[in-house]
Amino acid sequence: MMKQILYYLLLLPAICFSQQSNKNYANYVDPFIGTEGGGHIFPGSSVPCSLVKLGPDCGNKFTNAGWESKTNIVGFSHVHVSGTGGGPKYGNILVMPVVGNIDLKDYSSPRSNEKASVGLYSVTLDKYHVAVRLSSSHSAGLHEYTFPKSKASHILIDAGSFLLKPHQNAETQQLVGSEVQILSNTEIQGYSRVRGGWNIGAAYTVYFYAKFDTPAKEMGIWKSGKMMPGIKGSFDDGNPTGAYFDFQTREGQIIKMKVGISFLSSAKAKENSKELNSWSMDAAKQEAETKWNAILGAVEINDSNEDNKKIFYTALYHSFLQPSDRTGENPKWFSSEPYYDDYYAIWDTFRATFPLYTLLKPSLNKDILRSLIDIYKYEGYMPDARSGNDNGRVQGGTDGDMLIADAFVKKLDGIDYQKAFEAMIKNAEISPGGDERKEGRGGLPDYNTVGFVSTNYERAGSRTLEYANNDYAIAVMAKGLGKEELYKKYRERASNWENLWNPDVESFGAKGFIWPRFKDKTWENANKFTTLKSGSWSSFFYESNSWELSFYVPQDVKKLVLKCGGYKSFENRLDTFFTHDMHDKSVSLGLFQVNNEPGFLTPDLYNYINKQDKTAAIVRKILSRFYNTSQAGLPGNDDSGAMSSWFAFQALGFYPNTGQDVYLIGSPIFKEVNIHLQNGHLLRITAKDAGPENIYIQSVFLNGLLLTKNWFRHTDIMKGGTLSFVMGNQPSGWSNNGELPPSMSDDK
Amino acid sequence: MMKQILYYLLLLPAICFSQQSNKNYANYVDPFIGTEGGGHIFPGSSVPCSLVKLGPDCGNKFTNAGWESKTNIVGFSHVHVSGTGGGPKYGNILVMPVVGNIDLKDYSSPRSNEKASVGLYSVTLDKYHVAVRLSSSHSAGLHEYTFPKSKASHILIDAGSFLLKPHQNAETQQLVGSEVQILSNTEIQGYSRVRGGWNIGAAYTVYFYAKFDTPAKEMGIWKSGKMMPGIKGSFDDGNPTGAYFDFQTREGQIIKMKVGISFLSSAKAKENSKELNSWSMDAAKQEAETKWNAILGAVEINDSNEDNKKIFYTALYHSFLQPSDRTGENPKWFSSEPYYDDYYAIWDTFRATFPLYTLLKPSLNKDILRSLIDIYKYEGYMPDARSGNDNGRVQGGTDGDMLIADAFVKKLDGIDYQKAFEAMIKNAEISPGGDERKEGRGGLPDYNTVGFVSTNYERAGSRTLEYANNDYAIAVMAKGLGKEELYKKYRERASNWENLWNPDVESFGAKGFIWPRFKDKTWENANKFTTLKSGSWSSFFYESNSWELSFYVPQDVKKLVLKCGGYKSFENRLDTFFTHDMHDKSVSLGLFQVNNEPGFLTPDLYNYINKQDKTAAIVRKILSRFYNTSQAGLPGNDDSGAMSSWFAFQALGFYPNTGQDVYLIGSPIFKEVNIHLQNGHLLRITAKDAGPENIYIQSVFLNGLLLTKNWFRHTDIMKGGTLSFVMGNQPSGWSNNGELPPSMSDDK
Repeated sequence: MMKQILYYLLLLPAICFSQQSNKNYANYVDPFIGTEGGGHIFPGSSVPCSLVKLGPDCGNKFTNAGWESKTNIVGFSHVHVSGTGGGPKYGNILVMPVVGNIDLKDYSSPRSNEKASVGLYSVTLDKYHVAVRLSSSHSAGLHEYTFPKSKASHILIDAGSFLLKPHQNAETQQLVGSEVQILSNTEIQGYSRVRGGWNIGAAYTVYFYAKFDTPAKEMGIWKSGKMMPGIKGSFDDGNPTGAYFDFQTREGQIIKMKVGISFLSSAKAKENSKELNSWSMDAAKQEAETKWNAILGAVEINDSNEDNKKIFYTALYHSFLQPSDRTGENPKWFSSEPYYDDYYAIWDTFRATFPLYTLLKPSLNKDILRSLIDIYKYEGYMPDARSGNDNGRVQGGTDGDMLIADAFVKKLDGIDYQKAFEAMIKNAEISPGGDERKEGRGGLPDYNTVGFVSTNYERAGSRTLEYANNDYAIAVMAKGLGKEELYKKYRERASNWENLWNPDVESFGAKGFIWPRFKDKTWENANKFTTLKSGSWSSFFYESNSWELSFYVPQDVKKLVLKCGGYKSFENRLDTFFTHDMHDKSVSLGLFQVNNEPGFLTPDLYNYINKQDKTAAIVRKILSRFYNTSQAGLPGNDDSGAMSSWFAFQALGFYPNTGQDVYLIGSPIFKEVNIHLQNGHLLRITAKDAGPENIYIQSVFLNGLLLTKNWFRHTDIMKGGTLSFVMGNQPSGWSNNGELPPSMSDDK
Repeated sequence: MMKQILYYLLLLPAICFSQQSNKNYANYVDPFIGTEGGGHIFPGSSVPCSLVKLGPDCGNKFTNAGWESKTNIVGFSHVHVSGTGGGPKYGNILVMPVVGNIDLKDYSSPRSNEKASVGLYSVTLDKYHVAVRLSSSHSAGLHEYTFPKSKASHILIDAGSFLLKPHQNAETQQLVGSEVQILSNTEIQGYSRVRGGWNIGAAYTVYFYAKFDTPAKEMGIWKSGKMMPGIKGSFDDGNPTGAYFDFQTREGQIIKMKVGISFLSSAKAKENSKELNSWSMDAAKQEAETKWNAILGAVEINDSNEDNKKIFYTALYHSFLQPSDRTGENPKWFSSEPYYDDYYAIWDTFRATFPLYTLLKPSLNKDILRSLIDIYKYEGYMPDARSGNDNGRVQGGTDGDMLIADAFVKKLDGIDYQKAFEAMIKNAEISPGGDERKEGRGGLPDYNTVGFVSTNYERAGSRTLEYANNDYAIAVMAKGLGKEELYKKYRERASNWENLWNPDVESFGAKGFIWPRFKDKTWENANKFTTLKSGSWSSFFYESNSWELSFYVPQDVKKLVLKCGGYKSFENRLDTFFTHDMHDKSVSLGLFQVNNEPGFLTPDLYNYINKQDKTAAIVRKILSRFYNTSQAGLPGNDDSGAMSSWFAFQALGFYPNTGQDVYLIGSPIFKEVNIHLQNGHLLRITAKDAGPENIYIQSVFLNGLLLTKNWFRHTDIMKGGTLSFVMGNQPSGWSNNGELPPSMSDDK
């Protein structure tokens, strides 16, 4: 009893100091982490969820975020995504300073002195001896070019440029049209209209308005590579166009340029350019830092490990780069709801990124969910992925369902859950047809009749298992909304994963696996398929194999454990999974492909058999082996912050099972973290003796009470409080007799 | 033998005079025919298939073509459709002259002196004493306003105006955004972005650029009904906006205005405005007449019945008002193919309108089909209906299939039939899902398994019967392209209509009807359904009932006759159909609803039992009873020219069975018609003694040879020649022993 009182007393100062500190957390962010090694991180200037992400496009413009390490810089464009795989998107309205003759076939330049920090990207273009600095606001870019002495200095604005894929495949972007109109010797506007890209989306239009601080000597345009000096504008005839502004520059003369961007019109782009209320790069960078600190500062870390802080804050930064807030920029309908784009894909981000928003910035999550519901209202389906104002592509399940259920159980308010539920039912019941990669659930005619997606459809294994978890999300919502019949219906469907469980398949000592099944309920032959066959769009498993996906039953791990033969068998199976080396070790741990999302929860599954020490050991191994401060410091594509958010949660010491009000305890890496919850409360997380060796939990106190189980609820910490770990270098078995995390089959 | 030679000789002069005459056929067109009585004809200024259709929007802006007879004129807008039903579309960029105070809540005016001719609409606005004349080119409108003496004359440009439906239902248009930018005292540009309308389409944007011939004294804009004097422009914030130009006018002062319209950009709109190369109304009207005469003059009628010529040429005019040629104006993709929009719907127009293009202007048909194939390539499905750059809605079958097959059997070249066939197979095999009214075939999972669309789906009867005919179109193509297996497959499916034939249903002495069927193959009870239950979107029959649809087997009338009990029974059934009065007589003949398309072919079905005299009698009864020169001179909605095209064919004396190379002979009304085929050949059609009494064919000679059957092929007349009828006032039984028109079941 005395102990409890003591902890309550410890709690008090935490509440008193719940306001955020003024520290510049942005200094911990290194925008280059994850730009190489397939991370595809965007290293340019941005603010959280901004419309404008201003940075360099390099080489053949084949890379997802525009940037590439060794090739030339082609120019600096205003719209990008970060951390994505597949075909590139955006790279619109490209600006490039050029000195000497303009060669429209290749005006790129090698670079030196490349640097990036929050809100500022700088580089020297060696071919032209021009020093470049870029900053940005939400919807506008600020360019600063320091020229050498020259009578032939130019700034090009290329409205026909965009990122693309080599060989015109379906995922490449294609130009629909472009236009420029020179308004004066300091002003130009126009647009670029592009279709395609990763989500094979319909045409989107990026409008711009640009203003120079220095009048040009001459101006002109080009069209389809042909210079048209003196011509001030040209109407859209489908061909790529651009404009150039000529200057006579003194040595070191600085020319600046504000570029407003809009998805509605050039006039709106001009309005957006006013966000930059001065020509000062410093002011713009400071404003960007302020905006980023409002996010980053929600987590105040007191720990001496500078590298870990750098990785952590950069991970937070990655997590909030997108979706893009395009409220007031929706060209498809007018509504009073928020509008977000660049869900790329929710399949990646529902697991850790969105729960991270719920923890650190629930108002953002609320706005995004309202946007998803509005998309459903106006277009028929919530997206699983969306970019350039168009849904597509669904990789597995309908993961908007997970976001809604997660928000619902974590009691986010301001969301029309009835309407959201309607959207979830639509996902579950109405076959999207036509292109089943676009939205909704493909293979539904099978799933809703025989109870699994048969081999007649692509991604049948991933779809079946993910739909089952989605159906549990629907059941959870139905129950919460008092719809008993629907609860029963979808709770039953949530067991559909069992229909693909082939009890006879054996692999490395484990028995029973998820397996391809024909519509007549016979199984695919083991000669034609192995537990390790990993796949992509047209395969049975998506970004996973049978070993990985046979662990994917987040809604009912208890039942999964039984299917696997009980606790001991399940433990052996997990042990084998994390140790049986087969794959590329740069992205794998045993059979676990760290770089793909289907296994995100698997390290924490030891919690479900009360072997939390093993969760701690595996999680820490992943954190230290696959995340670092280098340019290749992420395990593969960041996937719109997914990899980074996984790091952020695990570094804090717990990890969500999305759609349930459950955090599974892992192993905190920081000695002290103060989370300034958006509701004004402070959540203090301490980890006594935490360090690279002390990875095992000896005890945990939640709000001063000893926690004897290896999990807790979001609703337990929503009002702030303390979560106090005591760490050690040996397994303690601390929670081995505690109540297990909940599973669907706990409910009768 | 001598007789044959004689006719060959008669043929010669016809070939020699195959060039078109210079007569002004446009004078026969009365744009007001069909504007009332539900015809929904657009009476304003246009050129064939033009992008701009400039005319008045009236009253509450609830009518489909904008025009209404008794209400006030709100203004003159630039984009319209003609003859459509359901929710209105377009009505964008509205211009209105106002004298005195501007009341933004209601600036409409009563009218007088309203007149319309090809390429010219004129009216006096009584409230403002302004005389209005409007003309147009393909993509630009020319306005002429004659003002009274006033210090407060204005011209308003309302970018927030559009046609809508009372009560915000799904088919109404909704504003997405609008923008105006006053460029000078004579220039303005901007746009209007709107979504919804009949096809519940995605947002489309109509850009404009307008130039006055007279500088304004003052200018300003308004937003959401609030005047903003002196303000020159405003960015899009989703609210309706507009601009006004103020003038001080002398009595009778004329102010003119050119308005370019584009679906790409204001700069393109400005380029389009240059189509009007002078300010002359007369020149613009003359140019419009020339363009219309190039269409109308293909049919040179020598007959003294002026009313019939007026109806006929106006019908031709209606048939070529849309689809709209938007080549070079596609904001969704860039391609070298033509681009047409406003298919509204092909379900209406495949039956007579498109075959009319094939006869009179095959180059147009080719361009349109190439556009359909391009839409399939870029968007996944050929449209059945499309407007505002978005597919939707499919009323019954996938009728693009019919257009392709029709062009194929009639040997239109320049079409990629392989790609087109791929699009047809997509229709037949891939369920559109999501919104099954948008494109493709709804209810396909039923149709492709149990062989009919069950009552689980809406429009199950219409869909089944129409899909069967569509499948025959696919079979025809497959055969022609040498795909034997596919030919067999779809030829078999083309019999699927039989699966809904309930042999036990009786009505008015006829036995055996198309009937609602459950998926378990049991039939709907006769107590719950009657042969006369006519329906709409959610019904079993669409715009038809069982009596009507039980005649709809265009691919196999022979088999239908057998099902109905043989020749005599079929004849009795047709007799009953055309005489048993039940419906509204203003649009019906017996049980036949003349105002709906499913029965278009039925009057000609007598030909299939060699009772051609009865076809002649019924056709002539319809022509004279339901078509006249009044404003209500069409039987219901013209349906994008469908009703008018039906008239045109029947007036010439034959009618197509679309998808087959077959014209069924009816009863020609003109004594002599010279059709100047686009390939340079002349087809001369004479009807000796033709007149209101002489409706029965006594004999027919095709190219001098006595035709003993009641049908012929398009390929028989493609090279021109003569088709000579001899008419009389009594049935002659002329073809009663001839070869019957072909049916699918003729082939073994």
